Amino acid sequence: MKTLGTLGERETIRIIQRIIKSDASVGPGDDCAAIDIGDRYLLVTTDMMVTKAHIPKGMGPYDIGWSIIAVNLSDIAAMGGSPLGLVTAIGITRGHPIDFIEQMVDGMNDCARRFNTSVVGGDTKEHEDLVLCGTALGEVSKKGILLRKGAKAGDLVVVTGSLGRAGAGFFSMKKQLGLKEAEDALKRPWPRIKEGMALSKSGFVTSCMDISDGLSASIFELSRNSGMTYEIDYARVPKAKEVDMAFHDIERQKDLVLNFGDDFELIFTMKREHEADLARLAEETGCPMTVVGKVTSGEENILIDNGKREKLENLGYEHFRTRTP
Amino acid sequence: MKTLGTLGERETIRIIQRIIKSDASVGPGDDCAAIDIGDRYLLVTTDMMVTKAHIPKGMGPYDIGWSIIAVNLSDIAAMGGSPLGLVTAIGITRGHPIDFIEQMVDGMNDCARRFNTSVVGGDTKEHEDLVLCGTALGEVSKKGILLRKGAKAGDLVVVTGSLGRAGAGFFSMKKQLGLKEAEDALKRPWPRIKEGMALSKSGFVTSCMDISDGLSASIFELSRNSGMTYEIDYARVPKAKEVDMAFHDIERQKDLVLNFGDDFELIFTMKREHEADLARLAEETGCPMTVVGKVTSGEENILIDNGKREKLENLGYEHFRTRTP
Repeated sequence: MKTLGTLGERETIRIIQRIIKSDASVGPGDDCAAIDIGDRYLLVTTDMMVTKAHIPKGMGPYDIGWSIIAVNLSDIAAMGGSPLGLVTAIGITRGHPIDFIEQMVDGMNDCARRFNTSVVGGDTKEHEDLVLCGTALGEVSKKGILLRKGAKAGDLVVVTGSLGRAGAGFFSMKKQLGLKEAEDALKRPWPRIKEGMALSKSGFVTSCMDISDGLSASIFELSRNSGMTYEIDYARVPKAKEVDMAFHDIERQKDLVLNFGDDFELIFTMKREHEADLARLAEETGCPMTVVGKVTSGEENILIDNGKREKLENLGYEHFRTRTP
Repeated sequence: MKTLGTLGERETIRIIQRIIKSDASVGPGDDCAAIDIGDRYLLVTTDMMVTKAHIPKGMGPYDIGWSIIAVNLSDIAAMGGSPLGLVTAIGITRGHPIDFIEQMVDGMNDCARRFNTSVVGGDTKEHEDLVLCGTALGEVSKKGILLRKGAKAGDLVVVTGSLGRAGAGFFSMKKQLGLKEAEDALKRPWPRIKEGMALSKSGFVTSCMDISDGLSASIFELSRNSGMTYEIDYARVPKAKEVDMAFHDIERQKDLVLNFGDDFELIFTMKREHEADLARLAEETGCPMTVVGKVTSGEENILIDNGKREKLENLGYEHFRTRTP
């Protein structure tokens, strides 16, 4: 019998997408769906967190609450949207202390308020385990919407912030390395709302998504959506300072930076002739924006490392299927 | 240690609502939240279904998919809204057969399409158990929004359709009574979208909600929101024909009609002087609309049964807390 374990998450999602007939202007398959509401698009995205696979042991209830809001807002950011509000559904055991839910809801509230929006409703159900489901709503102008598709050969590939910090935080918690900033980055992701809105307004961004599952997975997705290929220069990829502290081994560092994910930075492509405007955008938003490569029309996605060109493999996190070692 | 089991679902929700600072025009506590988007309200509601508590054994994957869409659309209906789209998050084991998810997603798609809307996005995660979370979006004119509050003394209390059918279906499945229509009603709830939109346009409806947790729980909620009391005449409550077939005992029948829930009919209050318009509304929508009582400014909610006035207890379904027998 064929099960979801045989298929893996991405194939399962493709099956679902074949069945679902969406009316939306942008349907399943991007960071958000976009619904035409006349003069602009309504954006909507939903994300489920289940204890076992998604919540590292060191995360307290406040962090869990913060995260479910942050990861959903990150999808709004990836489309260039301005948040309109969120709803959260909570499945929780009757044995959970009241403190736990109070702190978790505090985290939800604080994260939403920090990004000038709010939790407007929700649902609470008894369950054997903690499960959270968040849904974020946003709006974006029709011409300002940022999609996964749209890149053209010659476009520059840019990432916000730096990569590998959340991964370093994960290993710091696991091996008690005391990399507090990195642990905080993992526990309380920071959606790039302001940056996404600035990219949307800029007029020169040709595609965008967030890096929730790692840079390699994002490149794979952008490539699939645009029909283009991507060349990433590893030396230019902004590595979080904690990556060096988490691992001495260069290959393990590379794995953190390229494949771990959970940094919730944005990756976008832009018209090359606007490269000079990038510094202004970075200054306005107070967020580093680094060119890490270019869009090509080649055979496969390439990683350039130490002068060597290798195939950029998609090693991002995937559910259901057990990763072969 | 105080746990959620000590508190019960409603008290837990009240704790959450004290912490959350919502910006919405209508915040948590109604069937949907309503966000001001200029000329109209954006409605949003979310509902989680967990296998153990919410999914009766006889329900197949198609029914489960249909239900998660239907219960969310029912909340849009309760506010008088027109659906804009839905997103669904699915937590599922890797051992689930592919067939299962295909049928479940078929059910989601069919239900959404049946009510002239669609599933526009979602999320799929691995979990130890099946958990579904649906979120529905809708829109409604500012003056047409239907809230739980707003009833005035003298208003009539009206329900759509009939009550107790889903409960009869539940017992039919449990005791193999073969009440197929009732079982279908339980398995595939029918949200009153068209009816809610007609009530919104009528201009004479003063409050509304859906009857997901039973008539008694709905009356309790309407009373809490309006600050009024309600007098329900049991003899006038439209009883589904299957109720008599499920139980001979009058008290058990009454329990099905008043407390079981899952019928997803609408209960609303309206200005008495428009009573004559109700028949027209019922005809237009093809849905029975029955006056079952009135709004009062008394001490408590009253059930009139066989000429006797008794207190209408709130015995609707509540999570977390074990019901004392």
